Amino acid sequence: MDNDASTGDRVEIRTEKGVYSGILMPKHAFSREGIVLIKLDSGYNITIPEDEILEMKIVERIGKRKGITGKAPRGIGPKIALINTGGTIASYVDYRTGAVHPAMSSEELLFSVLELSGIADVEADVLFSVLSENIKPKHWSRMAEKAAEALNSGKEGVIIAHGTDTMGYSAAALSFALSNLNGPVVFVGSQRSSDRPSSDATMNLLSAAQVAVSNLGEVAVVMHASTSDDYCHVHRGNRVRKMHTSRRDAFVSPNSRPIGKAWPEGVELYDHRKKSDGDVEVRPDFSDKVALVYAYPGMSEDILDSILSRSDGIVIAGTGLGHVKESLIGTLKSHIKDGKTVVMTSQCLYGTVNMNVYSTGRDLIKAGVVPGGDMLPETAYVKLSWALANLDGGIAEFMRRNIAGEMEEARYL
Amino acid sequence: MDNDASTGDRVEIRTEKGVYSGILMPKHAFSREGIVLIKLDSGYNITIPEDEILEMKIVERIGKRKGITGKAPRGIGPKIALINTGGTIASYVDYRTGAVHPAMSSEELLFSVLELSGIADVEADVLFSVLSENIKPKHWSRMAEKAAEALNSGKEGVIIAHGTDTMGYSAAALSFALSNLNGPVVFVGSQRSSDRPSSDATMNLLSAAQVAVSNLGEVAVVMHASTSDDYCHVHRGNRVRKMHTSRRDAFVSPNSRPIGKAWPEGVELYDHRKKSDGDVEVRPDFSDKVALVYAYPGMSEDILDSILSRSDGIVIAGTGLGHVKESLIGTLKSHIKDGKTVVMTSQCLYGTVNMNVYSTGRDLIKAGVVPGGDMLPETAYVKLSWALANLDGGIAEFMRRNIAGEMEEARYL
Repeated sequence: MDNDASTGDRVEIRTEKGVYSGILMPKHAFSREGIVLIKLDSGYNITIPEDEILEMKIVERIGKRKGITGKAPRGIGPKIALINTGGTIASYVDYRTGAVHPAMSSEELLFSVLELSGIADVEADVLFSVLSENIKPKHWSRMAEKAAEALNSGKEGVIIAHGTDTMGYSAAALSFALSNLNGPVVFVGSQRSSDRPSSDATMNLLSAAQVAVSNLGEVAVVMHASTSDDYCHVHRGNRVRKMHTSRRDAFVSPNSRPIGKAWPEGVELYDHRKKSDGDVEVRPDFSDKVALVYAYPGMSEDILDSILSRSDGIVIAGTGLGHVKESLIGTLKSHIKDGKTVVMTSQCLYGTVNMNVYSTGRDLIKAGVVPGGDMLPETAYVKLSWALANLDGGIAEFMRRNIAGEMEEARYL
Repeated sequence: MDNDASTGDRVEIRTEKGVYSGILMPKHAFSREGIVLIKLDSGYNITIPEDEILEMKIVERIGKRKGITGKAPRGIGPKIALINTGGTIASYVDYRTGAVHPAMSSEELLFSVLELSGIADVEADVLFSVLSENIKPKHWSRMAEKAAEALNSGKEGVIIAHGTDTMGYSAAALSFALSNLNGPVVFVGSQRSSDRPSSDATMNLLSAAQVAVSNLGEVAVVMHASTSDDYCHVHRGNRVRKMHTSRRDAFVSPNSRPIGKAWPEGVELYDHRKKSDGDVEVRPDFSDKVALVYAYPGMSEDILDSILSRSDGIVIAGTGLGHVKESLIGTLKSHIKDGKTVVMTSQCLYGTVNMNVYSTGRDLIKAGVVPGGDMLPETAYVKLSWALANLDGGIAEFMRRNIAGEMEEARYL
């Protein structure tokens, strides 16, 4: 075995089972000892036990030539920041257990998509490395601060690599925490990890880079638009929702059309806010005393009361046009009198809350429940978390108003 | 004014504003005094103040001729039961306040769709009259008993007129409470009340009647398939969900295709269970100690603990493939040890839970959380409510098994 090969080199490996050609990949925290990891031209990563290697030839010294022993190549074009937070897009299979774990360094991420350097001069950074089901409001604060810092220190745009489970929540959070955006903040993830042939990681990341060097002045989510690899949708960060557990086109904007499309070679934006002059402003705090509550036929006053007692505000995903059982209205009313905020959205997800049609809706309005228009329940939850941490009053008024494209200024409020 | 006119008669009314021709409708509990209600051929209901009527002529004595002063016409064909539970399909505008209220009698419902008598011999009954946001598990029990009673006393099929907000929950409930179905149980509702020109009430009800006289042996939901009036979808009762607050085609089966289509003149079923011989069996009990819990980034152990303390079981709408924050797993585990059941579904709604891919999912499995496959969160909630009221043990095993078409026998369980 040729021990002179560097990470990033194109190599050809011969074993008894055949000859494999590809890019030598860096090892990572969970790599098994005694293996070599190669990215094939097909996109597959394969692992080859070192003791099965009969010969390894360096075909092209990409790594050494670019002077990147262990470092990713410096790109051309605008400077952007790639902030890694974990998730499938930066995950590796733990070869000991077969489970998927988050990558431990942004170098590993950069290396898996070397084409990124053809779009931008990327500075990568691991902010933290957690699967997105573990992202909490305090992580939103750190992402917001980090993105603002990058944009205010000369980066043209920011990519945030994020797990898909809660990417919609985090993107919505940054859309409220950041204002006067002087560059794009682009969330990107993947539904299939990069060691799988059907992975969407590379295309999503390259498309996100195209959006990151555009004139967008918003927080966006860039993910596959269809199950084929034709293009990605650019979603407004507070309008988008993961609507399938595994499909690559899982991300959908239920109540608005995407603000653009992107692909590895370019981007087309339609109906978007352009980047502003001056510095980004950041107000990164979020309350963790807000609950998102799903209405269901058997919900008891007792459970609703116990949730409200432990919260400063709640967002209800009500039924239909924005309803809960009449028997729960008294409980809501008494907590609203005590200063709690209750916002109504719909578990239908599509369409808008309208609490003037039926008597139940009108009674909820009378009790002081704030109608959430066509906001997604998740977005309303994040918005209320931000409002309670940053505003001294006028919470209800703030929730009814369109702040960052998250709702139609509604007819029904 | 011709006081001889009966409800159901075709009349022509002349006022200073014009001449109106249509069917004289019955008054209902919330009708304003001193008005006359006419169903125009367009489908509109209009109200005319009695003191503005210059002349009212009886054009055709439909009411008297059929001997139905205050009673709907006896239909032809198979005998079916129409069980009214309330909701928009049976709602009227309260002319004093402009709000919509549930109808108080099934006669009013029958009268608004006189064409029903061309499909079946309908026996209508008001079981209760509540807007569907107020439907509780005890109402599911009464609907199940009433449907079984109708089918076991010679009715070919049953239509249940129900508000749309929680129709999916109720249909799922009856799919578990009723077995060995010897006829169809068809839920139907409308998204626009019958006094509006865009109402879907008539077409949905007639299509439901076609399904009620078919050979279906399942609980179904029949609602508009598109925004035009071309046909209705026949959804399996435990696979369907209201996915829009107001559109007429709001009902969707996210993880399976509808089991048929229906229209006022006929029905076409594809992949359905046929009606059985013998009597329907009914086990109508449901636990009201089950909670449906939506996972969100800021959820505290304290809130989850307080919900579990008040429940015998919960269904979580987790993120992605079926996750919650790792910090919540300990709380789940300790309650599962105490005998509580925790079932995992996905807030993505589309796709299936798979808790073997990521470490969080595997840890949840180890803690004893039951994967819910591709069941809707609402269906899993209803199924667990039924299981806890009817089974002595084997709850987890029951939840994993396909009982009434509610899930794919899953690869990932």
